[in-house]
Amino acid sequence: MHGLMQRLLAEAVGTAFLLMAVVGSGIAAQRLSPGDVGLQLFENAVATAFALMALIWAFGPVSGAHFNPAVTLADVALKGRPVKEGIAYIGAQVIGGIVGTILANLMFALPAVNWSTKVRSGPDLWLAEVIATLGLLMVIFLIPRRNGIIVAPAVGAYIGAAYFFTSSTSFANPAVTVARMFSDTFAGIQPASAPVFIVMQLVGAALAIGLVWALVGRRR
Amino acid sequence: MHGLMQRLLAEAVGTAFLLMAVVGSGIAAQRLSPGDVGLQLFENAVATAFALMALIWAFGPVSGAHFNPAVTLADVALKGRPVKEGIAYIGAQVIGGIVGTILANLMFALPAVNWSTKVRSGPDLWLAEVIATLGLLMVIFLIPRRNGIIVAPAVGAYIGAAYFFTSSTSFANPAVTVARMFSDTFAGIQPASAPVFIVMQLVGAALAIGLVWALVGRRR
Amino acid sequence: MHGLMQRLLAEAVGTAFLLMAVVGSGIAAQRLSPGDVGLQLFENAVATAFALMALIWAFGPVSGAHFNPAVTLADVALKGRPVKEGIAYIGAQVIGGIVGTILANLMFALPAVNWSTKVRSGPDLWLAEVIATLGLLMVIFLIPRRNGIIVAPAVGAYIGAAYFFTSSTSFANPAVTVARMFSDTFAGIQPASAPVFIVMQLVGAALAIGLVWALVGRRR
Amino acid sequence: MHGLMQRLLAEAVGTAFLLMAVVGSGIAAQRLSPGDVGLQLFENAVATAFALMALIWAFGPVSGAHFNPAVTLADVALKGRPVKEGIAYIGAQVIGGIVGTILANLMFALPAVNWSTKVRSGPDLWLAEVIATLGLLMVIFLIPRRNGIIVAPAVGAYIGAAYFFTSSTSFANPAVTVARMFSDTFAGIQPASAPVFIVMQLVGAALAIGLVWALVGRRR
Repeated sequence: MHGLMQRLLAEAVGTAFLLMAVVGSGIAAQRLSPGDVGLQLFENAVATAFALMALIWAFGPVSGAHFNPAVTLADVALKGRPVKEGIAYIGAQVIGGIVGTILANLMFALPAVNWSTKVRSGPDLWLAEVIATLGLLMVIFLIPRRNGIIVAPAVGAYIGAAYFFTSSTSFANPAVTVARMFSDTFAGIQPASAPVFIVMQLVGAALAIGLVWALVGRRR
Repeated sequence: MHGLMQRLLAEAVGTAFLLMAVVGSGIAAQRLSPGDVGLQLFENAVATAFALMALIWAFGPVSGAHFNPAVTLADVALKGRPVKEGIAYIGAQVIGGIVGTILANLMFALPAVNWSTKVRSGPDLWLAEVIATLGLLMVIFLIPRRNGIIVAPAVGAYIGAAYFFTSSTSFANPAVTVARMFSDTFAGIQPASAPVFIVMQLVGAALAIGLVWALVGRRR
Repeated sequence: MHGLMQRLLAEAVGTAFLLMAVVGSGIAAQRLSPGDVGLQLFENAVATAFALMALIWAFGPVSGAHFNPAVTLADVALKGRPVKEGIAYIGAQVIGGIVGTILANLMFALPAVNWSTKVRSGPDLWLAEVIATLGLLMVIFLIPRRNGIIVAPAVGAYIGAAYFFTSSTSFANPAVTVARMFSDTFAGIQPASAPVFIVMQLVGAALAIGLVWALVGRRR
Repeated sequence: MHGLMQRLLAEAVGTAFLLMAVVGSGIAAQRLSPGDVGLQLFENAVATAFALMALIWAFGPVSGAHFNPAVTLADVALKGRPVKEGIAYIGAQVIGGIVGTILANLMFALPAVNWSTKVRSGPDLWLAEVIATLGLLMVIFLIPRRNGIIVAPAVGAYIGAAYFFTSSTSFANPAVTVARMFSDTFAGIQPASAPVFIVMQLVGAALAIGLVWALVGRRR
């Protein structure tokens, strides 16, 4: 068992790398494949899936590798993680995510912070965020503890797929949603669009908690 | 061991997500990569492969994660699952699949149901469905129980490949075939084309049952 | 332990599916992505990698899933498989491979057999075949028996990479080389080009046997 | 435990294949997908990721499959590998890498050595190399010994992602940096740009050693 400070550091560093993967590969895709948005999203999706797999394998043994307030929330609800600790996790994730976006901007010679102007709104996208988060949390919490090693490729694969099969390109993560406001590039989301996205993610999380409970109960 | 209702719920929800992945990524690919059908199918194939891997890992421990009447049928024939239970599984898969297609349509701001007008017919495609289903079922039922954890990536990889190596893009699943009638998009199939596809899938399943029997018998 | 007839059937059926994957996805890629040979090879490579992974996982427990005379030859040299059995394996692989190519042609509404006219020749390609086969056999025979489950993804990933990193697109398999003469499409090789390819693959196999011996001896 | 000569041979041969994968797939991508640099990098990234996974699985049990002086350095610092052995490892990696690049050139009918003229310079790229190496080493050294089998796919996936999410396309390896000077193609780097890249990689390695220490200590 690792100390709380170590776990919070793991959540922050891991989420920073996740955001570098999401935002950085989005910038690269946009620059290298101009005018071909399908290929851009394909590159972005595969890079994100691969990064998630590697990062969860690396940081999972330290902190559980949530990198996502919705996951931490479900962990509190389904596995009894203390609420205080959950709040600390979420703080670490949000800070790490913002740092990651800033580093992605700097790696690509952009201003450290440039607020996104990308509108992401509409009932179709909101439904997509509910479904994306619902699926993500079911994948994570239905996998039995004895198969813990496969959570990493399962999450990577799920998110890689969901980038394409949801109309919102599957944010499915409040910390990622906040952090992606800080980059006016391919992966950005304008601040005005973020709150409803986060609400929809929480709705998806609540549905997931209910469905996991119905399917396997809390005994895992 | 989970209760039957839990298993049926798992089959329905899992198949719904599978159809969201198949149909949703098809719509996204069609919109984002217009005029490049090769890239569209590539995006669709990778998204489907990734989704299958994640979903089978998640729902497998609950229900076996068939998501496919042909798999359930072979399970009855090769592993002695009770016929009644098999019929219930198939019902859950068909209902879940249709719900998934409807949700995919809604996520992309399309009418909930728009019947496909895509003709898929001809002896070349029918042969392809026989082969696609034969291969899928061999992959599933030849993997020994002790290696159960790899069924998920094996099925995902097989289907991702078969999207490209069969001329029918490998439906290989009667529930998926029915559900894909409900979306007049990239992944659709017009109702008039569906029955022969399903018959060919059952022929493939019968061949698979025979070949698995010949290769490893029923002792697994 | 499975009977010899079962193992030969597994080699034949598995190699047939491998060739369907290689040739079929080549035809699909050529048709769907006309004029973009890079994307064609990318689609072909990923489909082949995914198919290999699934097929080796499925047929490995029955026959070892060689699907490749060079692998069988190294197996005889390094692990003492009886020569007679090796010859039977090779026969099954060649027959299965040809059947697979024919089925791929038929799935895509082409004549069952149409001899390839694709010239593949030159010292650069020949060097590539030596290296491709050398690397493939090292990957297979350096992986310790206790990690047998990973041979499937290792071989799939290696071949998927080698399609791109060798100038010959990595045939690396005499049975595949023979079978690919039977299709005048993307993946074909004209009969006149095949013998030197096979000789180079055998040179690569001999180098691999020597290197594996030097690195880990026969004790595995 | 394998003898030192066997381990050095494994490092040299493995690094040679890694460079063939990196440089060879770069040349193929450049030739097959002219004018589409995004697709080129995508092909190059997936080929490299797949190759790394296969090679680490194969050579890991012999030598640890470092293929990278930064990894060897961290291994000395974190796991007490003897310094002398580390130096020998690094020598084998550099020699192997150069041989691999030469073989890649020859496979594609290019002069054995053609010095790269590709400028790779600027604070954005230098920051990217620090981050790329930091992330790579965290992935490798945070994965607990009991999960050693997943280091191969974790490293492959990480590098595949980092090709896209870092602006430098993630060299993250001094031996690879040296070897890539020898090919004036897609993957090349001009000799004048290499030293700063290597310094930045060493900075990233130092940061990684500190962070791994902070997160899990030396006890693994």
